[in-house]
Amino acid sequence: MKFNENLAQLVNYEAGKPIELVVREFGIEPKDVIKLASNENPFGTSERVVNAIKDVAKNAFLYPDDSYFELKNSLASKFNIGAKNIIIGSGSDQVIEFCIHAKANEKNAVLMAGVTFAMYEIYTKHVGAKVYRTKAQEHDLTEFLEIYKANKDEIAIIFLCLPNNPLGGCLDADEVYKFLNEISKETLVVFDCAYNEFAEFKDKKKWIDPAKIVNEFKNAIYLGTFSKAYGLGGMRVGYGIADENIIAELGKIRSPFNITTLSLKAAIEALKDEEFVTKSLENNFKEMTRYEEFAREFDIEFIPSYTNFITFKFKEQNASEIVQKMLKKGIILRDLKSYGMNALRITIGQPWQNDRVLKELKEMLK
Amino acid sequence: MKFNENLAQLVNYEAGKPIELVVREFGIEPKDVIKLASNENPFGTSERVVNAIKDVAKNAFLYPDDSYFELKNSLASKFNIGAKNIIIGSGSDQVIEFCIHAKANEKNAVLMAGVTFAMYEIYTKHVGAKVYRTKAQEHDLTEFLEIYKANKDEIAIIFLCLPNNPLGGCLDADEVYKFLNEISKETLVVFDCAYNEFAEFKDKKKWIDPAKIVNEFKNAIYLGTFSKAYGLGGMRVGYGIADENIIAELGKIRSPFNITTLSLKAAIEALKDEEFVTKSLENNFKEMTRYEEFAREFDIEFIPSYTNFITFKFKEQNASEIVQKMLKKGIILRDLKSYGMNALRITIGQPWQNDRVLKELKEMLK
Repeated sequence: MKFNENLAQLVNYEAGKPIELVVREFGIEPKDVIKLASNENPFGTSERVVNAIKDVAKNAFLYPDDSYFELKNSLASKFNIGAKNIIIGSGSDQVIEFCIHAKANEKNAVLMAGVTFAMYEIYTKHVGAKVYRTKAQEHDLTEFLEIYKANKDEIAIIFLCLPNNPLGGCLDADEVYKFLNEISKETLVVFDCAYNEFAEFKDKKKWIDPAKIVNEFKNAIYLGTFSKAYGLGGMRVGYGIADENIIAELGKIRSPFNITTLSLKAAIEALKDEEFVTKSLENNFKEMTRYEEFAREFDIEFIPSYTNFITFKFKEQNASEIVQKMLKKGIILRDLKSYGMNALRITIGQPWQNDRVLKELKEMLK
Repeated sequence: MKFNENLAQLVNYEAGKPIELVVREFGIEPKDVIKLASNENPFGTSERVVNAIKDVAKNAFLYPDDSYFELKNSLASKFNIGAKNIIIGSGSDQVIEFCIHAKANEKNAVLMAGVTFAMYEIYTKHVGAKVYRTKAQEHDLTEFLEIYKANKDEIAIIFLCLPNNPLGGCLDADEVYKFLNEISKETLVVFDCAYNEFAEFKDKKKWIDPAKIVNEFKNAIYLGTFSKAYGLGGMRVGYGIADENIIAELGKIRSPFNITTLSLKAAIEALKDEEFVTKSLENNFKEMTRYEEFAREFDIEFIPSYTNFITFKFKEQNASEIVQKMLKKGIILRDLKSYGMNALRITIGQPWQNDRVLKELKEMLK
């Protein structure tokens, strides 16, 4: 049977390996597995949120309030915007999908950084649009602008991943706002800010303000998520914030009930526990320095990270082999081979997890 | 800003009103609201599943095992098929989306019954494909075949909703298998069997066998869900079963982590509690007779239903007005106006819920 031609070009996203797989393949007990491959919050989910989930577990039979009334209102007060400026997605991932499906097509193109979140390209291929990438791996706005100006009529969407996954770097917000002024109002600029809470904590200058996007840039959308700092990766809740015209258009391709009843409650509660987020952020950057020191000691290249992960680029050693060896020891890290790099990405864990990771890495590299 | 042209034609799906809305708008206490608008299981979620959800609530921070290994294996044994024959969706709804996005496009068309599940048309409009509908509201396979033969090169997908939502009727499986033999192997036939457990319980002849689809019909896909008989509407888990070539193609447009960690666990557990399902099915058809008797008494037209709902078609009274009046009393029913009908759909509730609904309806109609 024939399917749409675009599918022929599609490859599947390579997700971080789940704990269950390590248990199945290597017979390691779940409690002995350390998963630092998917940038989940190493402190898990806040107790307050876990309790809220337990309270509403009995409502698993009920479809959620598809208007997401309470969640949108909570986000609106947090960011000082209106509820009409918000769309909810099954992870911010799904909002990326909405943007591409709504705006890209076989006749236009999408521009992104040389190495950036893999789903941008995958969704772009869904609709058969062309992909432009900068030669620079990280976001080089001069190069972005060059490519954009040379292909202005063709480029429908620009993705800026700030901070950038899987590399970790981040631009200053002011630089980005200046860039926006150079872009046509017909081009949609997507700020994927899944790690924005981390960037803001490390350096206020990196913080992209959703309200500024709404008020000043009618062609841009801010994406946020509950998967990282808020410790809800498994619940699949993200959001987009933009001018209400953009939100209305994206809303047309949002399916009803795109998040679960329990996820909705979890996200609402998570916004009430900023203390948990702060604790996570403090641990993250404190522990990050240990990885930085380790990298310097072993002459491993890394980009100063504004996220909850650090990416080690190797010269002589083979990153895939290291990831494989660590896996057999029950430690799941992320091989970046599928990004065309001899590198691995490590989520910053709790101190005891980092102890083990660094000890095992040291054994392997010495 | 311009968006893809297809979006201009799109209207949003009108979901059943949530309890929260009735609470907000009419100030009625949540415990006093009866929601029989979205075909959720009136017995809620099985206790076993609720406990399983509570047990894994602490894992809300972890992305699910994206291979859905255990769930697929459970479904494979249940249906006597292979794990490779299964794709998991965020509700069977999302598998409908996969089918349409993978196979339909601006140059082809999708065929469906005169009145059937609204999402088929919405997803078809996403990709700009044409919609053919039979004149008959319910599935008339002779008419399906006539339209199909007259437009064979154009029709890429045929949807059969068995039993049919929102009307409730169902064809015999044998009749459907015979129909399939008339269809080109290049046309994808989708069996949306969200209510198949109900049909099977009422009349074995209605049961569509997923294994038969896999083994004999390489161009067909069976869709099932945990939202109805299994009492997990709020958890968003459905599945498609087909030849592995179809599953592989659809897999290319499935996003990673498309169901939540808690939903995965809930679905796995739900398959272990068939007793709960049987209890729900027994109650459903026992209580259904009360609605049928009511309809006869008040001369309301209805189609004998093979589902967990009954649809009342009105002649003189205005169904929308009845739905609105019931809403003010805290009873949520589904107005079928958006389907072009002067009708309302009622989910069969628990006996005490049906007592109240029938009492209020009687007041209104007498």
